[in-house]
Amino acid sequence: MTASEIRALFAVASRPEVVSLAGGAPYIAALPLDAVGEMLGRLGSERGSSTLQYGIGQGTVELRERICEVMALSGIDVGCGASPDDVVVTVGGQQAIDLVARLFLDPGDVVLAEGPTYVGALGVFQAAQAQVVHVAMDDDGLIPAALESAIAAVRASGRRAKFLYTIPTYQNPTGVTMSEERREQVLDICERAGLLVVEDDPYGQLGFDGDAPRPLRARRRNGVFYLSTFSKTFAPGLRVGWILAPHAVRDKLVIATEATVLCPSAFAQAAVTEYLTTMPWRQQLKVYREVYRERRDALLDSLEDLMPAGTTWTRPAGGLFVWATLPEGLDSKAMVPRAVAARVAYVPGTGFYADGGGQEFMRLNFSFPSPERIREGVRRLSGVMEEEMALRSVFGAPALRRGQGRADVPGSQLA
Amino acid sequence: MTASEIRALFAVASRPEVVSLAGGAPYIAALPLDAVGEMLGRLGSERGSSTLQYGIGQGTVELRERICEVMALSGIDVGCGASPDDVVVTVGGQQAIDLVARLFLDPGDVVLAEGPTYVGALGVFQAAQAQVVHVAMDDDGLIPAALESAIAAVRASGRRAKFLYTIPTYQNPTGVTMSEERREQVLDICERAGLLVVEDDPYGQLGFDGDAPRPLRARRRNGVFYLSTFSKTFAPGLRVGWILAPHAVRDKLVIATEATVLCPSAFAQAAVTEYLTTMPWRQQLKVYREVYRERRDALLDSLEDLMPAGTTWTRPAGGLFVWATLPEGLDSKAMVPRAVAARVAYVPGTGFYADGGGQEFMRLNFSFPSPERIREGVRRLSGVMEEEMALRSVFGAPALRRGQGRADVPGSQLA
Repeated sequence: MTASEIRALFAVASRPEVVSLAGGAPYIAALPLDAVGEMLGRLGSERGSSTLQYGIGQGTVELRERICEVMALSGIDVGCGASPDDVVVTVGGQQAIDLVARLFLDPGDVVLAEGPTYVGALGVFQAAQAQVVHVAMDDDGLIPAALESAIAAVRASGRRAKFLYTIPTYQNPTGVTMSEERREQVLDICERAGLLVVEDDPYGQLGFDGDAPRPLRARRRNGVFYLSTFSKTFAPGLRVGWILAPHAVRDKLVIATEATVLCPSAFAQAAVTEYLTTMPWRQQLKVYREVYRERRDALLDSLEDLMPAGTTWTRPAGGLFVWATLPEGLDSKAMVPRAVAARVAYVPGTGFYADGGGQEFMRLNFSFPSPERIREGVRRLSGVMEEEMALRSVFGAPALRRGQGRADVPGSQLA
Repeated sequence: MTASEIRALFAVASRPEVVSLAGGAPYIAALPLDAVGEMLGRLGSERGSSTLQYGIGQGTVELRERICEVMALSGIDVGCGASPDDVVVTVGGQQAIDLVARLFLDPGDVVLAEGPTYVGALGVFQAAQAQVVHVAMDDDGLIPAALESAIAAVRASGRRAKFLYTIPTYQNPTGVTMSEERREQVLDICERAGLLVVEDDPYGQLGFDGDAPRPLRARRRNGVFYLSTFSKTFAPGLRVGWILAPHAVRDKLVIATEATVLCPSAFAQAAVTEYLTTMPWRQQLKVYREVYRERRDALLDSLEDLMPAGTTWTRPAGGLFVWATLPEGLDSKAMVPRAVAARVAYVPGTGFYADGGGQEFMRLNFSFPSPERIREGVRRLSGVMEEEMALRSVFGAPALRRGQGRADVPGSQLA
């Protein structure tokens, strides 16, 4: 399939009759939209002269102060050197990754990242003409021994990895969380290797089964870029994220963002600031967690009840995604058109590997569809899989084909 | 002065007691803010489930259709191949320039641009490690013979220019408009040289003395990227701009924007769409034009009345800026701190040249301050200039120093 065929397919997948387990969209209808609308209206009518005007590249100091309060909730506080002065507001979490890449990556550079990892990050690294070396993970996250081997292998090949890109908490696409112990090990390994860490944490506030282990940045002052976004905790339509950067490079990030977007939207920044100042956002986080916990349970229960034998999957303690491994011989990418024909969509695993591997996996989203729709989607999906397996037993197994990797999937479908 | 000293200076310049002729901000207070606020509120309360959600990388089809209606006003219509399908929505005009640069520029490449040109474009080209070759302009815009010489000189040096970046109408920073005749000549020269044209047109709708000549894109279907923004015609705080791209590269631009920001803000797009659909935006354009014409006249009259002999300036027929040439021996960059101490600010010409030249020029903005403030600002500025000239006659002329170029000035102050 070509890129535009895949785009067309995703367009079909967004039709209402299709149960989409493919996106990464939060359930915005859980927000108090009347109150949010009223707040947005006031920002225009009462403060339009500033909210509709240009701002400064780094973002407003008011928002950067609120961001520090949000980070303090997960342990990134004054004690570990977090300051509004070192926060750079970005156009969502995506621009945060892009800015860090612009600062550090030259063509041919190596980036280490979990395998699989966020498709949008792969897009950034590909645009920067960097090479991604995947590091294996298991149910406790990135495997420290695999990280050490990867660093050594890159060195042995005469290159040097510029940074480790990691999503330690409720990872996209796997839903897996890096354990306490491994967090310390991974930080030690990177420190010894002189490797920067880019910690991407869009989902850390969305834990269902107690709190997640503290972020990497809460454990080390130096060498860690912390990236996050309000896309999952408030609303992605405003495109507001941030970087907490080492002080020494803060100015360079500001110059880079000025060259890219001039300044983040003053209106969107005011909206997030006002939301965090005047509305019960901690309560809203609980609402999101409760909604997503119910939906995760619906997805896990449906998979348990309906999936063909030989299918396995992760059991995330938070976030938006479950990562499933297909019975041997099934090809998740080849199966997409048949799934869409059966009115269910998912993202094939190939989207999340730089080398186009991952045909045996699929990513299933549980944040957007209702529990009933999730169950119906899994029913349709298992039907497709069973048909595939039946065909396979009649006609024999086609060899798994290596795909084209992430370029196959429109990034904006996959947040 | 270091970059952070200059940032500090611009922070001082934004204090209310300083008359700032330095920015590039539209006069947002001229908008019907009550009605705009009400509209923004409804977008949140009645349509929040989509306006606060993710969107697609290219931007909504509704907004792209409205954008085509806006372009048709200046002659870029169906007849010359403009289609919503080839529009890519961007995070303001800045991201439009950045995306085009990402698509075409490799380190060491050459870009041709007017000298002086938009500081934010210089920031993009510098980040892309491209080299800017300035082409001289006069009161009729870019000089065709200078363009031909520049193309030949670049070729003779064994390199090749990737594109011509031009702001043909009410240029930033000079306020100058390229004449009818020259538009055709410039297009012919670029066509013969196989040179792409990147036409940046943020100000084209803001003419005070009749309509501007048709954009370059209205004259040629092929080889022209047309870039614009709603920052000057509606509100910069929403960060919504666009590219009308040749069809063949449209997909590449979408992939590039996905890697940079995932998708433009759905809320901001809905706001602009709703503004263009339900509000009297053509009438509002007339309001902006009327306000700016009065302010331009106030600036030109004040310059005439108050500037020391030997000062000259452009007489723009639209846009936001006047470009002044100082009496011989004065250095606009060295004079900035003294001007700010005298409670007036401007941007020294050095911001607008890639090579740090331009100390003899300054850019004066007339869109934001009131006519009274403009006059007061020019009075203060002429006082500073006269003091400088007096000192100079006593102590002799210091040699003009070559500056550091655009890195001196925060881009977001200079829209």
